[in-house]
Amino acid sequence: MTVQVTVWNEYVHEREDEHVRELYPNGIHGAIADGLESGNRTVQTATLQEPDHGLTEAVLEETDVLVWWSHCANGEVRDEIADRVVDRVHSGMGFVPVHSGKNSKPFERLMGTTCAIKYRHGGETERIWVADPGHPIADGLEESFEIPSTEMYGEPYDVPEPDRTVFISWFEGGEVFRSGLCYRRGRGRIFAFRPGHEEYPIFFQDEVRRVLSNAVDWAAPTAGATAVRGEVEPVESIESTDDP
Amino acid sequence: MTVQVTVWNEYVHEREDEHVRELYPNGIHGAIADGLESGNRTVQTATLQEPDHGLTEAVLEETDVLVWWSHCANGEVRDEIADRVVDRVHSGMGFVPVHSGKNSKPFERLMGTTCAIKYRHGGETERIWVADPGHPIADGLEESFEIPSTEMYGEPYDVPEPDRTVFISWFEGGEVFRSGLCYRRGRGRIFAFRPGHEEYPIFFQDEVRRVLSNAVDWAAPTAGATAVRGEVEPVESIESTDDP
Amino acid sequence: MTVQVTVWNEYVHEREDEHVRELYPNGIHGAIADGLESGNRTVQTATLQEPDHGLTEAVLEETDVLVWWSHCANGEVRDEIADRVVDRVHSGMGFVPVHSGKNSKPFERLMGTTCAIKYRHGGETERIWVADPGHPIADGLEESFEIPSTEMYGEPYDVPEPDRTVFISWFEGGEVFRSGLCYRRGRGRIFAFRPGHEEYPIFFQDEVRRVLSNAVDWAAPTAGATAVRGEVEPVESIESTDDP
Amino acid sequence: MTVQVTVWNEYVHEREDEHVRELYPNGIHGAIADGLESGNRTVQTATLQEPDHGLTEAVLEETDVLVWWSHCANGEVRDEIADRVVDRVHSGMGFVPVHSGKNSKPFERLMGTTCAIKYRHGGETERIWVADPGHPIADGLEESFEIPSTEMYGEPYDVPEPDRTVFISWFEGGEVFRSGLCYRRGRGRIFAFRPGHEEYPIFFQDEVRRVLSNAVDWAAPTAGATAVRGEVEPVESIESTDDP
Repeated sequence: MTVQVTVWNEYVHEREDEHVRELYPNGIHGAIADGLESGNRTVQTATLQEPDHGLTEAVLEETDVLVWWSHCANGEVRDEIADRVVDRVHSGMGFVPVHSGKNSKPFERLMGTTCAIKYRHGGETERIWVADPGHPIADGLEESFEIPSTEMYGEPYDVPEPDRTVFISWFEGGEVFRSGLCYRRGRGRIFAFRPGHEEYPIFFQDEVRRVLSNAVDWAAPTAGATAVRGEVEPVESIESTDDP
Repeated sequence: MTVQVTVWNEYVHEREDEHVRELYPNGIHGAIADGLESGNRTVQTATLQEPDHGLTEAVLEETDVLVWWSHCANGEVRDEIADRVVDRVHSGMGFVPVHSGKNSKPFERLMGTTCAIKYRHGGETERIWVADPGHPIADGLEESFEIPSTEMYGEPYDVPEPDRTVFISWFEGGEVFRSGLCYRRGRGRIFAFRPGHEEYPIFFQDEVRRVLSNAVDWAAPTAGATAVRGEVEPVESIESTDDP
Repeated sequence: MTVQVTVWNEYVHEREDEHVRELYPNGIHGAIADGLESGNRTVQTATLQEPDHGLTEAVLEETDVLVWWSHCANGEVRDEIADRVVDRVHSGMGFVPVHSGKNSKPFERLMGTTCAIKYRHGGETERIWVADPGHPIADGLEESFEIPSTEMYGEPYDVPEPDRTVFISWFEGGEVFRSGLCYRRGRGRIFAFRPGHEEYPIFFQDEVRRVLSNAVDWAAPTAGATAVRGEVEPVESIESTDDP
Repeated sequence: MTVQVTVWNEYVHEREDEHVRELYPNGIHGAIADGLESGNRTVQTATLQEPDHGLTEAVLEETDVLVWWSHCANGEVRDEIADRVVDRVHSGMGFVPVHSGKNSKPFERLMGTTCAIKYRHGGETERIWVADPGHPIADGLEESFEIPSTEMYGEPYDVPEPDRTVFISWFEGGEVFRSGLCYRRGRGRIFAFRPGHEEYPIFFQDEVRRVLSNAVDWAAPTAGATAVRGEVEPVESIESTDDP
């Protein structure tokens, strides 16, 4: 089965900040997409600047899993497009918000919480521990891996209690963070992954690419059962009817 | 400790439909409020027609638990007020949506799903089973209780997997439904309760009043810990700084 | 990937009760195994009467998913073998207890609760509703299916709150039951499925075979990450040592 | 409402190791009990060496919450007494295993997993972050607190996914750990708390005493509903009877 992936990026830092552009000459979306290349996936990209932010009905309809990177332009995503993403997740599309994508409109709407955190710039070591070694998103990892320099995110992370806590991060500056969380909303699977600050070459790191590849495969839709909603006739005969 | 309860009602059916008005001469909110009267609670009501739907910042600020009944006017609640309710839940206010309040803007935003169901009018027997007899919302109940005539709600109920499933309903017409579900969003506790169709005297029934009283006490805020969010200084000294 | 399934059966009713033997001439394990036949699975059976109940270390080591039917002989399973099954689940083996297998030693030990229910013999209609239509165990099902005659199980079911509630049953006699529940223990996936009373030809029913096939595929082990436990050296240098 | 607490301790290190005895001249149970003293609680202690380990039917019957410290003598607790504790938790008694009490027989049996971890002796700083600031067990705490010297516990912690993750620890040596986890088993509430190594004066620390006091209040039984189990008569008339 081929998984059709769309990697979405606001694509602002790479165009406005030379340091970021040098790190990601093809954009963060380009680097993420490269890391997902595989015989069992097709990967396309989309960005904020395209019509409908590149997320037309047609694009989403043929997307199995949407990977989402965003940060400074979270507020510029049109409400209508955010709702379109949310609707597709409800219908079964997988959704993998990365880093500040936690404050994207689609993720906040799917969670129903503020998704607020504490943070710190400047670069410090992060060690990501596998808390759920039996989870397929951890397939092939060692017990932990390090990101040598990164922005810090710290608890308390204002999200609903997750279905599974796959990763927990240790930060050199003294904080911790639940860095890989699984959710279901409607038929869609969601995996929120913490790393990915734009000022560091994180999306070229092997372990990060491994996690995103695993997450995309895990989040791909499955067939499921028929769901009938709306007004229905009774299955059994009703004797106690009291229709006012 | 006194729990300050606000019972909110769209208050439309009682004004427009004579049968409903006869059942609920003081409004559904009046009947719910009566059932919550107790030495350890203060109870006030609010309706859609009041300025800010009766849910001003001041009212919400002093509300510990908001009980919410709505149905045909879910779409008339202003977005700004719905967001105000959601924000207060995040800050700790309990929220108890009843019956079609499952499709109120605040509940849908807190869940992040469609909250869609199947349903049937006409009146039939519902038997509500306690699935979690150790839960405080079930305090004082028998193993089940019946609602002699009601609208049916049927699975699949499109909500996130709940923290606890307290009640499951059996319907004469052949369906089942998870009728009492617990959630946390931010600091706030949420209990979604199925019964309460406006065409039947359900809010005068002892067991329903018991459940709502238990739910209000359960959903009342607790103190909790300090939460620091936003940009912070490190707790430990950082040696690996690589600030680009 | 081939999933290696072992179907375990206490194999008592079929040998002692003529009616059951006529229904299941090859044993309940034989009927379940037949329903699981597929190009991507190998299926073997084991019974209580074999040495080590047919569950030697070697058999379990090469079993990806263990389907378990038991009832009157739950107490005759040796503690040592029950613990062996539990250990293998911790290591990743899927476990699918069916019907009274809910009171098998392995399932009770994995749950940590009594798994007690209410029940009734005599034959009545059960309608199994899909509560989680997006779950792979529901793949290919309609919104509900019926078992024409069966023993009833009723709530409250004394199990931990499940990871997912896939099915909920409606019974003609007025009860409800959570009939398909998902858990994780260690690396192993567990799916507890209610139907399967020995006095009815339930394991020849298409929908039941579909559910068990889906469950076996869902419960198959995945690779996961390395897990290091026991005493370890520090990753970071420790300055505050206060070794007494 | 008065909460009746029993603090159980294996009471071995304090008798065999002079350093521990000096820290805890009244035993670890004595120090924990002192920290729980309050107008709304009665506190008694029990130890391994007493008849029935001090946990007779009569003692457990009048215990609302059992706090449990154990380590090197986990294997010496008689199976019969461990099962008695488990049964009482199922009936509603709160259970608060502390530190290596995670490998006590009652906790392992309630979890259904190995509860295995990684660890390191020697003394290092632990910083305990509140991950769920809205939880009553965190009442009155700052966003984090430190234990200056302690044994390390590291992920992956082999327990079922918890109902709530209240605390996550940061360790100087580079590890993380979910240090405060909530569960329900039957009617009983369980809170597993990590700190408490015997070689440091941890149970005299204000924040630790605060957490244990909060946990005891949270874990106290509530009334709940009637639960009927075993064979029952139908509530509705059954027409499709097919009693073989």
